[in-house]
Amino acid sequence: MELQFENGLVPAIIQDRHSGKVLMLGYMNREAFEQTRTTGVVTFFSRKRQKLWVKGETSGHRLRVREIRVDCDADTVLIQADLTGPGCCHMGYKSCFFRRITQDGEEVIADREFDPDDVYGEKQKESQT
Amino acid sequence: MELQFENGLVPAIIQDRHSGKVLMLGYMNREAFEQTRTTGVVTFFSRKRQKLWVKGETSGHRLRVREIRVDCDADTVLIQADLTGPGCCHMGYKSCFFRRITQDGEEVIADREFDPDDVYGEKQKESQT
Repeated sequence: MELQFENGLVPAIIQDRHSGKVLMLGYMNREAFEQTRTTGVVTFFSRKRQKLWVKGETSGHRLRVREIRVDCDADTVLIQADLTGPGCCHMGYKSCFFRRITQDGEEVIADREFDPDDVYGEKQKESQT
Repeated sequence: MELQFENGLVPAIIQDRHSGKVLMLGYMNREAFEQTRTTGVVTFFSRKRQKLWVKGETSGHRLRVREIRVDCDADTVLIQADLTGPGCCHMGYKSCFFRRITQDGEEVIADREFDPDDVYGEKQKESQT
């Protein structure tokens, strides 16, 4: 089985090992994928910044890899991880999927776990996917 | 909140509403996304075939939409769904993520739920993402 990178990237779904909550989706190039495997800490390739991005390098909320799964086409990975911090999302939520789409628009369906201003201060606040 | 389609597509993670299992990842263009919303049945855009693809149109194993979530960047959706059939994967498994990557290679970690030959016969057997 050879991972299929498309334009050098593979999407990686991160799932909380305990709750089953889907935390986020990021992208990995081969180097990020290998670094994720060898260090056991989820590392993406930031398409915005065009460089490796260890998730949590600013916030400290890292993702420890427990299992890496691959889909039938070998073009998507699913990582079971433990979150070492209150939340995965740069907006202060456990999961980046904190809103649902309704008939009328959208609705926030989760509570904030932390205040992004406290965690990020003047540092890079934006999502880096 | 305006969904951010990249090159006309947004990745859609499908999660089984009951088990929390991540079933698959597919891609939607705006039309597929709107059809998914209005019909309540997950509809992708097949990049291989360059056309709309109602998941389960061949196998009958459709995905009924229960909730659509969107991430902080609004560039990925997470759909909570009910699977109307034994498995989501065209290779006969409940989830497309039926293998884990190990030190030595890969390992199948799920049982087959159905025989793809029975379900697909001579019809399109391939994944269409």
